[in-house]
Amino acid sequence: MQISWRRLLLGNPLPSEAYVHQRLNKVKALAVFSSDALSSVAYATEEILLVLVTVGLAALALSMPIALVITGLLAIVATSYYQTVHGYPSGGGAYIVAHENLGVWPGLIAAAALLIDYVLTVAVSITAGVVAVTSAVPMLFPLRVELGLLAIALITWGNLRGVRESGTLFAVPTYVFLGVFLTLLAVGFIRLLAGSLSPIAPPTLPMDTAGAAPLTLFLVLRAFASGCTAMTGVEAISNGVSAFEKPEAENAGKTLIIMAVLLGIMFLGITALARAIQVVPVEYESVVSQIGRAVFGSGPLYLALQAATALILVLAANTAFAGFPRLTSIMARDGYAPRQLANLGDRLVFSNGIGAVALLAALLIVLFGGRTHSLIPLYAVGVFLSFTLSQAGMVRHWHKTREGHWRTKAVINGLGAVATGLVLLVVIESKFTHGAWIILVLIPLLVAMFRAVKHHYLAMREQVTLGTVSTHLGVHWGVPQQYKVVIPLSSLNRASLAALRFACSISQDVTAVIVDVEPNSTASVQEDWWAWYAEIPLVVLKSPYRSVITPLLGYLEEVDRRDPERGLAVVILPEIVPARWWQHLLHNQTTFQLKAVLLFRQERRDEARIVINVPYHLRG
Amino acid sequence: MQISWRRLLLGNPLPSEAYVHQRLNKVKALAVFSSDALSSVAYATEEILLVLVTVGLAALALSMPIALVITGLLAIVATSYYQTVHGYPSGGGAYIVAHENLGVWPGLIAAAALLIDYVLTVAVSITAGVVAVTSAVPMLFPLRVELGLLAIALITWGNLRGVRESGTLFAVPTYVFLGVFLTLLAVGFIRLLAGSLSPIAPPTLPMDTAGAAPLTLFLVLRAFASGCTAMTGVEAISNGVSAFEKPEAENAGKTLIIMAVLLGIMFLGITALARAIQVVPVEYESVVSQIGRAVFGSGPLYLALQAATALILVLAANTAFAGFPRLTSIMARDGYAPRQLANLGDRLVFSNGIGAVALLAALLIVLFGGRTHSLIPLYAVGVFLSFTLSQAGMVRHWHKTREGHWRTKAVINGLGAVATGLVLLVVIESKFTHGAWIILVLIPLLVAMFRAVKHHYLAMREQVTLGTVSTHLGVHWGVPQQYKVVIPLSSLNRASLAALRFACSISQDVTAVIVDVEPNSTASVQEDWWAWYAEIPLVVLKSPYRSVITPLLGYLEEVDRRDPERGLAVVILPEIVPARWWQHLLHNQTTFQLKAVLLFRQERRDEARIVINVPYHLRG
Repeated sequence: MQISWRRLLLGNPLPSEAYVHQRLNKVKALAVFSSDALSSVAYATEEILLVLVTVGLAALALSMPIALVITGLLAIVATSYYQTVHGYPSGGGAYIVAHENLGVWPGLIAAAALLIDYVLTVAVSITAGVVAVTSAVPMLFPLRVELGLLAIALITWGNLRGVRESGTLFAVPTYVFLGVFLTLLAVGFIRLLAGSLSPIAPPTLPMDTAGAAPLTLFLVLRAFASGCTAMTGVEAISNGVSAFEKPEAENAGKTLIIMAVLLGIMFLGITALARAIQVVPVEYESVVSQIGRAVFGSGPLYLALQAATALILVLAANTAFAGFPRLTSIMARDGYAPRQLANLGDRLVFSNGIGAVALLAALLIVLFGGRTHSLIPLYAVGVFLSFTLSQAGMVRHWHKTREGHWRTKAVINGLGAVATGLVLLVVIESKFTHGAWIILVLIPLLVAMFRAVKHHYLAMREQVTLGTVSTHLGVHWGVPQQYKVVIPLSSLNRASLAALRFACSISQDVTAVIVDVEPNSTASVQEDWWAWYAEIPLVVLKSPYRSVITPLLGYLEEVDRRDPERGLAVVILPEIVPARWWQHLLHNQTTFQLKAVLLFRQERRDEARIVINVPYHLRG
Repeated sequence: MQISWRRLLLGNPLPSEAYVHQRLNKVKALAVFSSDALSSVAYATEEILLVLVTVGLAALALSMPIALVITGLLAIVATSYYQTVHGYPSGGGAYIVAHENLGVWPGLIAAAALLIDYVLTVAVSITAGVVAVTSAVPMLFPLRVELGLLAIALITWGNLRGVRESGTLFAVPTYVFLGVFLTLLAVGFIRLLAGSLSPIAPPTLPMDTAGAAPLTLFLVLRAFASGCTAMTGVEAISNGVSAFEKPEAENAGKTLIIMAVLLGIMFLGITALARAIQVVPVEYESVVSQIGRAVFGSGPLYLALQAATALILVLAANTAFAGFPRLTSIMARDGYAPRQLANLGDRLVFSNGIGAVALLAALLIVLFGGRTHSLIPLYAVGVFLSFTLSQAGMVRHWHKTREGHWRTKAVINGLGAVATGLVLLVVIESKFTHGAWIILVLIPLLVAMFRAVKHHYLAMREQVTLGTVSTHLGVHWGVPQQYKVVIPLSSLNRASLAALRFACSISQDVTAVIVDVEPNSTASVQEDWWAWYAEIPLVVLKSPYRSVITPLLGYLEEVDRRDPERGLAVVILPEIVPARWWQHLLHNQTTFQLKAVLLFRQERRDEARIVINVPYHLRG
C-alpha cells in the first residue's frame, strides 16, 4: 500500500544503470538552469526603483544608468563563467573551483555562501511569483504564504521524480515566459515609437517614504546593489555542467552565452520601458504588472504575462532544487556534509538534499511572511561572495595549468573577480543593517559545521580502520567462549524461556537477574525458578528507589570487574513485542531504555558490551 | 549534573519503606482535598447570575431560592458520601464503588467521568483563579493564558515533590482564604445591618444580552445547573481516604462534614450578599471582587481577598492533582489503564499520572483561551454522572453487606442517587448545546479505550504464560547449537572484526553479507576478505535500486527457508557508536532501521529472530 502510493507519486524506482542516460539537451538545460537568472527580470528593476523612489520621482531617472552598469557587469561575469565551464567540464561550481585553487577555507566559505543562496533563491523566487499572481488577482493577497508553500510542494514533487522529467516539466513555462516577455518589450517599444503609449497615471497610493531621503552616493550604490539581484543564477550552469549531454562543456558554454544575452536584453528592455512610461513602485502591484497593463491593456495578453511570470518565478526555484542537492552531494563525498546527502534515491536524484532545501525555504517563507523585499538584502551577499571566490580561483587555475592563451583567460577571470569583489563590498556596506549581517554571521557558522563534520569522519576512519590491528579471529571453531551472560527478567514467561535457551546454548556461565520492585511478584518468580531452573543462578537486586535500570547497571559493573580477561558481560534481553503500534504505550519502556543505555555506555576502552535481543511476538 | 538538578527540584529519592509515613492529618487533608469544593464559591454564584441576567435585572432575585436548593442538595450528597467513606475505608471513589457493586460497565463509565472532571477541575479552577488576579490588576488580563500555564507548572512541581509536602505547601493559603472569606461575609452582613452598605452602582458596561431572553422554566433550570458547580469536589475526600492518618475512615468522615458545612455557609452567604447589594455580573471583574470592593473598599483587605481567592483557586487544581493519579493507578492495577500509571516515582508519588493531568489541563486552557465560562458546561455532566453512579452503587453495597442500620443507609444513599440523577438530567438537557454533548461523546470513547487496554493485557498474559509449555531448556550445556549466523557488513573495520569474532565463537555456520550499493567499495571489501577470512563465506547482494534493507531481508528469508528445523537465522550487527549526539546525524541510520525492522517482523509463528548488537565506540 505504502509502496504503491510512493510509486504513483514518484514513479517506479530506477536502476543504477539508468543514471548515465539522465542527461539534458541544451533546450531543456536552458529551462532547468536559466529560469533563476531569466526570472529575476521580474523583480530586479523594481528593487532599483524602490530604493530611488525614497528620494523622489525625479531620482527614478537614475535607473537606466544603473541598469547599464549592471548589464556590463553581467557581460564580464558571463564571460568569466564561460571560461569556468570549459576549465571544469565535469562541473565547476564556486565550491570546487575555490577549494581546488584557493584552498580549503575559501572553498568552504564559497560552499556556505552557495548553500544559503540556493535556499534564498527558492524563497525569493516563489514569493515574487506569488506577487505576480496577486498583482492580477488581488483577492489572493492574504493567502500569499499558503500559495508559496503550495508551490514549494509542487516543485519538490517534480524534483523527486527525477531530473530529466524536471526538464520536461519546466521547459514549456520557461519558453512561454520568454515569448510573452519579449512580445511585451517589442509591442511596448513599437507603441512608444508610434506615440500610442503615454506615461501611466501616478499611483493612487503614493509611497509613505517618497521624497523623504536626500540623494547621496550611498543611496545610488544601494539601488545598484539591489539591482544586482538581476545577476543571481548566472553561475547555475557552471555547477551543473555534468547534467548536460555530451560534449558537456561545449553545450553548457553555449547555453550560458544564450542565457546571458537574453537576460541582458530583457533587463535593459524592461528598465527602459519602466522609465519611458514613468512607472512608480507600489506595494500591491508589481512594476512588471503595471507595464504589462499599460502596454497590453487588461486583456488576455496581460493575463498571459502575469501567469507566465508567476510560473517562471516559481519554477526558478527549480535551479536551486537542482543545484543544492548537487552541491551537498559533492561536499558529502569530500566529507564536509553528512554522507546521507551523497546517496542517490531510488529515482536517481539526491532525495535527501531536495528535502532539505524544500524544508529550509518553506521555513523562510513562513518566517518572512511571504515578502520578497525583506529577503533581497540577504540574497546579494552570498551571490557575490561566491562569484568573487570562484573567479579568483579561476585565475589561479590558469596560472597552474598554463594552457594556451592562459594569460588572456587569467586576465578575464581576474577582471570578473575584481568587479564582483567590488560589488560585494558595496552590497555589504549598503545593505548591512537591512539583513546582510545575518549572512555574515551564518557563513562562519556553516564553515565551522563543515569542519566539524569532516573532523568526525576523519577521526572515525582512523579509529575503526583495521590498520595495524591483528585481523586474526583468534577463536577455536565450535569451542564456545566462556562468556559471562546476564539475563534481566521481570517475570517468567515464554519470552524469558526463549532468552534462557539461547543463553545456555552460547555459554555455561549464565545468570538471571531480577530487580525487586514488587516484592510479591519477585517472590513468585523465585519460587518458579527453584522448581524449574535451579541449576542457573538467579540474583535478586534490591531497588529502594524503585528504579530498574540503575541497580542493573551496578550489577553489570560488578560482573565486569570479576575475571576482567573474560571480557564484559553479555546481556540477553527477552522482549515482548506487541502487534499494534498503540499497544507499545501499554508496556513499560524499560527494555527499550536499557538497550539505549547499554548501547551508549562505554565501559572500557576498545571493548563494548554485546547485547542480544530475543523478541517474542504477540498476536493481534 | 542531570541527577543533581533533578534532586534540587524534586528532593532526594524516597525509599519504598517511607511510603506508609506519607499520610495527612485532618488539618492538612482539609487543605489538600477541600480546596476544590471550597474554592467553587468564587465562581458558582456568578454562574447563576450570568444565566439570570439574560432575562433582566429583576430575574436576579431568583438567585437566592436557587442557592438554597443547591445547598439542600449539598447536604444530601455530603451525607451520602459520609457513608461511602465508612463503607470503603480503603478509598471508595465512584469508580471503585460502581465497579464493585454495579458491574464493569458502570464502573468504567464512572471512571471516564471522573478522569474528565479531574482535568476540567484543574482548567476551571486555574482560569477562575487568574480572573481573581485580573479583576484586581486589569493590566494582566491579556496574559491570562500564560498565567494559567505558570500556575499549572507550579502545582505540578509541588505534587512531584510528594503528597505530604503538598499538604504543607497548600495548607496556609486554604486557611487564609477561609479566614478572609468568612471575614468578608461577617463584615458585609454587619455593615448591612448597620445600614452602612448600600447597593453598588449598576455596571458602566451593561451585558449585551441583558434583558433579551424571556423567563422560562428551562432558563431557571439552566441557572440551577450552572450553580451546581458549587458542589464539584465534594467527592474528593472519598477517593483519598487512604491518604488520611489512621483511623482513616473516621478522620476522612469528619473532614468531609466540616468541609460541607463550610461550603454551605460560604455559598449561601456570598449569594445573599450579592443579592443584597444588587451585583450584576460583568466580563472584566468577578462577582466576588465586586462584593469585596463594596464591603472592604479598595484597601489591603480587598487585595488580601483577591489574592487568597486566586491562591485557593489555583491550589484547588491540587485536588485533581491528588485524585487523577490515584484513580489512574487503581485502574492500571485493574488492567484498564497503561501499567506505567501504577508505578510510584522515586518521590513516592504517581509521577506519570501527575504529568498526564498537567498536560491535558494545560491543553484545555490554551484551547479555551483561559475563559472559565466556556468550560463550566463541560464540567457539570461528569460530576453528576459520577455522583449518581457512586451513590447508586452504595445502595447495592448496603443490600449486599446488610450491616446494622443498612436499610436507613440504603435509603440515604438512594435519596442521594435520585437527587443527583435528576440534576444530571437537568444539566444534560439545559447545557447540551453549550458543550455538554462533548462529554457525552467522550465518555463512550474513553470506556472503549479502557476495554481495549484490558483486552490487550489479558491477551498478552494468555500468550506469554508458560502454562502448558515445556519449561525444559532442552540444551546440552557447552555444546553450541548450529545457529545460522548472518553478519551484514558495509565495510571491513574494527566493528566488523568484533562482530565476526563473536559470531565464530557461537556457531560454525557464519556468513557475512554485503549489499552492493557502491561497486568500488564492495570490490575493496571482497579483496580484503579473500586475504583474511577466506574460510568464512561472503555473500554479495545486488541492489539495483540502491536500497540496503530490502535485499538483506530477502536474503534472510532465503536462509530461513534452508533447514527450517535449525531455526531462523541469527543476525549479528556491527555498530559504530559516535561519542556525541549530533554525530549520529552524520551516519546512515541503516543499522537502526534494520534493528527496528527485524524486531517488528514476525517471520514464523512462535519463533522470532534473535538480533545481536556488537557496538564499537568512537572517542571524542
